Amino acid sequence: MLHRQYYVEKEKQERLLARKNEKSAYYNGILQKYQYPVLTREHIPLHWRYDLNTETNPYFMERLGVNAVMNSGAIELDGKFYLVARIEGNDRKSFFGVAESDSAIDGFRFRDYPVVLPDTCPEETNVYDMRLTKHEDGWIYGVFCSESKDTSSDDLSAAVAAAGIVRTKDLKTWERLDNLKTLRSPQQRNVVLHPEFVNGKYAFYTRPMDDFIDTGSGGGIGFGLCDDIRHAVIDEEIITSRRRYHTITEAKNGAGAVPVKTEKGWIHIAHGVRNTAAGLRYVLYAFATALDDPSRVIAEPSGMLLGPHGWERVGDVSNVVFTNGAIARENGDIYLYYAASDTRMYVASTTVDRLVDFVFGTPQDPLRSADCVRQRCALIKKNLEFLEVQGE
Amino acid sequence: MLHRQYYVEKEKQERLLARKNEKSAYYNGILQKYQYPVLTREHIPLHWRYDLNTETNPYFMERLGVNAVMNSGAIELDGKFYLVARIEGNDRKSFFGVAESDSAIDGFRFRDYPVVLPDTCPEETNVYDMRLTKHEDGWIYGVFCSESKDTSSDDLSAAVAAAGIVRTKDLKTWERLDNLKTLRSPQQRNVVLHPEFVNGKYAFYTRPMDDFIDTGSGGGIGFGLCDDIRHAVIDEEIITSRRRYHTITEAKNGAGAVPVKTEKGWIHIAHGVRNTAAGLRYVLYAFATALDDPSRVIAEPSGMLLGPHGWERVGDVSNVVFTNGAIARENGDIYLYYAASDTRMYVASTTVDRLVDFVFGTPQDPLRSADCVRQRCALIKKNLEFLEVQGE
Repeated sequence: MLHRQYYVEKEKQERLLARKNEKSAYYNGILQKYQYPVLTREHIPLHWRYDLNTETNPYFMERLGVNAVMNSGAIELDGKFYLVARIEGNDRKSFFGVAESDSAIDGFRFRDYPVVLPDTCPEETNVYDMRLTKHEDGWIYGVFCSESKDTSSDDLSAAVAAAGIVRTKDLKTWERLDNLKTLRSPQQRNVVLHPEFVNGKYAFYTRPMDDFIDTGSGGGIGFGLCDDIRHAVIDEEIITSRRRYHTITEAKNGAGAVPVKTEKGWIHIAHGVRNTAAGLRYVLYAFATALDDPSRVIAEPSGMLLGPHGWERVGDVSNVVFTNGAIARENGDIYLYYAASDTRMYVASTTVDRLVDFVFGTPQDPLRSADCVRQRCALIKKNLEFLEVQGE
Repeated sequence: MLHRQYYVEKEKQERLLARKNEKSAYYNGILQKYQYPVLTREHIPLHWRYDLNTETNPYFMERLGVNAVMNSGAIELDGKFYLVARIEGNDRKSFFGVAESDSAIDGFRFRDYPVVLPDTCPEETNVYDMRLTKHEDGWIYGVFCSESKDTSSDDLSAAVAAAGIVRTKDLKTWERLDNLKTLRSPQQRNVVLHPEFVNGKYAFYTRPMDDFIDTGSGGGIGFGLCDDIRHAVIDEEIITSRRRYHTITEAKNGAGAVPVKTEKGWIHIAHGVRNTAAGLRYVLYAFATALDDPSRVIAEPSGMLLGPHGWERVGDVSNVVFTNGAIARENGDIYLYYAASDTRMYVASTTVDRLVDFVFGTPQDPLRSADCVRQRCALIKKNLEFLEVQGE
């Protein structure tokens, strides 16, 4: 017999899934944040967590609980919106689940089963943060982090990270390819596949780095080419967006969403990290690279595009916003999906025109307080003169 | 004259102490969380903090403020519920205070004075986290952390920790015994006395460790025997619950509440710690050991028993839940007292039957994402088939 508590919990969940999202009161003209998360732990189907049978689960107890739903790849397919979420079990292992909706901002429902990745790497302990690229070769690629224990270290926590690669046509059947090899970087996280061929090759955004939470040695976001996507090997990695002293990328940075193609260039939404007394702080920023050379930075607007606000600041890893998925629609609408504090998924909307205006119309970071004040005073002076002319 | 502000503050406090606790909306079938904290800084008697005399305290100003009330030992005695709380003064030093109530979930009031421990260790700077064990020898033991400055280090913050031991019959008069000596471990924290003799000896849960916030080298929760509780010395420590890569115990773990005796085994509620970009994250987990050998693990359910949710996530040390006290009543009810973020005390209730079902009915952690997905898909498949049979 179905446990009677099932009906109680099911009804609570249906109310949550039916809740319409609302625009947040926060305004900056760049992004429209929405008030409610689009995916949380409470969105995970009950039959993924509970044994529904009263006989084998008399107390209707979570058998395989879920701790968090975060860093989701995003894609539009045949008019539907899909998030491939990172789901973290109560056991701390992450895996992927596909949630779909007719709307970009609410109504996301997980399918009956999580994604079953081909288990090709026996040493792989954890997988997370999939970026979905609709490539011009006709496939949808998922590039994710594949993490294993660092058996060369005495530290029980030491991990090594690589970029895993899968491909699909329908988000149902996944073919796993070889992990990416970067000959000059022992580890990789936050790897993104560029959606077009560059010089006839597959192009990846990478992050040359040595170890996990502390990076230090890496110079920024990398870019590299490879011939064969089924056995991807990158030799040289060029740095595109650099880490810089006393900026939002001081501690580290990494590629986020798949770049959005616009008339003026490829627009990248990445994350920047600085250190604080309470740990690392992650914000999102944007920059543009050239259409004819997606590794060449052509616009670097100052500061952050999006930081954590209000309750977004609090979670398993507080003070973090992170994106690995945005949907740019043909009508120019853009939906940026971002995780708050490694715990739940939110969405913010904008348009290609607004994003282009932000990236190309925002001045560059002058890197020194005195120069930043000069930059701000120039804006203020212009405004005060303008207000006077307008008779305000 | 009594300061008139005293009456204002007294009335506010009485309202707080009289507030009935309510079940939280959070459901998982394992534990029922309660909405309001059972002990906070605001529960500390006014006469512990203020000079009440208008003449000597004209502004009715806190003279000896209290910063936080946390990690409390718990015990039922003659039908009343007692918490021996860790109280942290504004000066950062901790001490113990006994709070009592007729109810397990609200109404806790501190006595007129805090606990005055016999001051037998001149080098002892701080004491905290007392576990209360009703031992079959007839005494109630309090085992706590006794911390001193590490004079061998140049680091001003370096501390050495030992397990202090007191005993009492009434929670009023405390006899202090020698600190526990563990011959093979230079330091100890999170030590718990087992309530029964094992092979005619006193049995302790320990944690072999070398230094304070970073442990690294310790293998997990230890277990050792000693002959004389007044001069307790442990030679060999056996590891019971181990730290494991990419689990909730990766960074460290430690014993929590005194184990609960059930028909199927001793049930332990411990804490597990992992590292994040925003510092350490503490959750609670459970495991069982054999009735005939409390050092032998016989069940290790996957994942966490309880993690911080909502506002529990925020405090002096954010993202922490911690327990050092649970009350298992003769009627089978269990009250688990836990501190949120080193700042205030909460309670969650369950029963022996539920806890046994959780510990013995939850599968083990398969340690790899791919195997965790297999484990979850087996549950999902079973549920989907069951739903079909039920015509849902």
